[in-house]
Amino acid sequence: MAKNLTTVVKSSKKEVQINRDNGVVIIGERINPTGRKVLQAELREGKFDMVRRDAVAQVKAGAAVLDINAGLPGADEPALMVQMIEEVKAATDDFPICIDSPKTETLEAALRRYCRDGARPLVNSVSAETKRIKEVLPLIKEYGCAVIGLCSGDSGIPKSAEERFQSAAKIIEEAAKLGIPTEDIVIDPLVLTLGAEWRAGKMALDAIKMIVDEFGVNITMGASNVSFGMPDRENLTSFFMAMSAMVGLSCPIANPLKMQEVTALQAADLILGRDRGGMKWIKGFRARQSAQTA
Amino acid sequence: MAKNLTTVVKSSKKEVQINRDNGVVIIGERINPTGRKVLQAELREGKFDMVRRDAVAQVKAGAAVLDINAGLPGADEPALMVQMIEEVKAATDDFPICIDSPKTETLEAALRRYCRDGARPLVNSVSAETKRIKEVLPLIKEYGCAVIGLCSGDSGIPKSAEERFQSAAKIIEEAAKLGIPTEDIVIDPLVLTLGAEWRAGKMALDAIKMIVDEFGVNITMGASNVSFGMPDRENLTSFFMAMSAMVGLSCPIANPLKMQEVTALQAADLILGRDRGGMKWIKGFRARQSAQTA
Repeated sequence: MAKNLTTVVKSSKKEVQINRDNGVVIIGERINPTGRKVLQAELREGKFDMVRRDAVAQVKAGAAVLDINAGLPGADEPALMVQMIEEVKAATDDFPICIDSPKTETLEAALRRYCRDGARPLVNSVSAETKRIKEVLPLIKEYGCAVIGLCSGDSGIPKSAEERFQSAAKIIEEAAKLGIPTEDIVIDPLVLTLGAEWRAGKMALDAIKMIVDEFGVNITMGASNVSFGMPDRENLTSFFMAMSAMVGLSCPIANPLKMQEVTALQAADLILGRDRGGMKWIKGFRARQSAQTA
Repeated sequence: MAKNLTTVVKSSKKEVQINRDNGVVIIGERINPTGRKVLQAELREGKFDMVRRDAVAQVKAGAAVLDINAGLPGADEPALMVQMIEEVKAATDDFPICIDSPKTETLEAALRRYCRDGARPLVNSVSAETKRIKEVLPLIKEYGCAVIGLCSGDSGIPKSAEERFQSAAKIIEEAAKLGIPTEDIVIDPLVLTLGAEWRAGKMALDAIKMIVDEFGVNITMGASNVSFGMPDRENLTSFFMAMSAMVGLSCPIANPLKMQEVTALQAADLILGRDRGGMKWIKGFRARQSAQTA
């Protein structure tokens, strides 16, 4: 069993240490125009009110890091990403961020602007595809930041836990060749949807266990994907997150305003013996109560 | 890793095969006067309406086995137990049962009356205490039934996962000496409350994993105990049950009318790849919907 590694993510003002021994933390997923028409319309008008509100609300709800995605069809993505980062920074007094784009030029433009005064974002993401490894890992090395490694390789969507493990191993190995330490790699096992593949949950759990046992790295996931196409999604996602925490999920990309999912992670921490005296559970319960009566 | 064993519980009319590969099943906990004043009052008057209603409601809600406990202070417990068994049998067309008493004389009276025409109850419980082993295991052998083995020994409440494992091993070993096969032992790890011992969850999970890996036996627990003294009990219990299912919980003693707990077990089965096509999850969702609108 590998030792649990610590991934450091920081802005120039605030540092977050991700390590499952300290409990599961949330990377806030809301600042993302995908599927959000009102946000898309605002961004097209050059307005950032909703971006700022989403940033503040997620920080208030307990997010540890804010994911920022500028995937607006037709937009100048690098410029929009840089602008969104500035807006989030201003709205949250420089809260730690995760720069989320499949486009290398967007990542590069954002890193060039953001990585100063000690800032060290999480980058979302590299994969085990040869092209992505060649393009993204040198950027991670150059800017000295942390990166999410998505478990898919040149042959596309992985079909087994074993294949996910191989992709994670490849990313970690290629990073090491460049001198990027393993603790700066956060692995995303690529959770499929149970609606299309009923063995998706087991496959992800097995993959997480294999990867964590071998490497001790932090684990993220877009957890809500697992319940897509199924009824009672929030319950299903919540139980999946709690069960994933048992094998090593440490920093899901999720919506910290979804109460049942936050409850799941707090319950998992208490049940796994990471919440001395149950103080976090009790505090979380009171916060939920006042949110409900507010 | 031991093979997952099958525990057979049956009435003279209906057989249940408990094996985690087929999903988690519930042993209905409601027929128990402990802490239920109205039920206590009825039983003192010699009335069994509530017993019959609880039996029918739990069967309808999907219980696989009905636990029956006659622990009414001051009552002639053996006689009351025999009567309650008859009432449950009549109300449910002879549904499989679990005979629940800490008193050997009650167990013996119940087994003498109940074990005919092929009926094979689950007995709740023996422990690793020398006295209980000597008194209860010979009854299990004589009547050819299955038994819950509670992980506490002569030194009282166990303080670690390891101590629980040792108690389970002792019960299984002593049973084997009498010719009782391992599949007829269902282990209860004795879950403490998180309110008093914040490491209780982890301790139970570790114990279950050790016991299941070594013996492959079925695992039960009084799951709701874990959340005693904590706020938001039903959520905490539900997440604990889902997480316990990951390491091998197969037949908790629970209230099948508590929707969130049933949801937890159905989610766990789906996430663990035991629900082909998600059909049980979808069916469960529809049942919850109609229960809510009824």
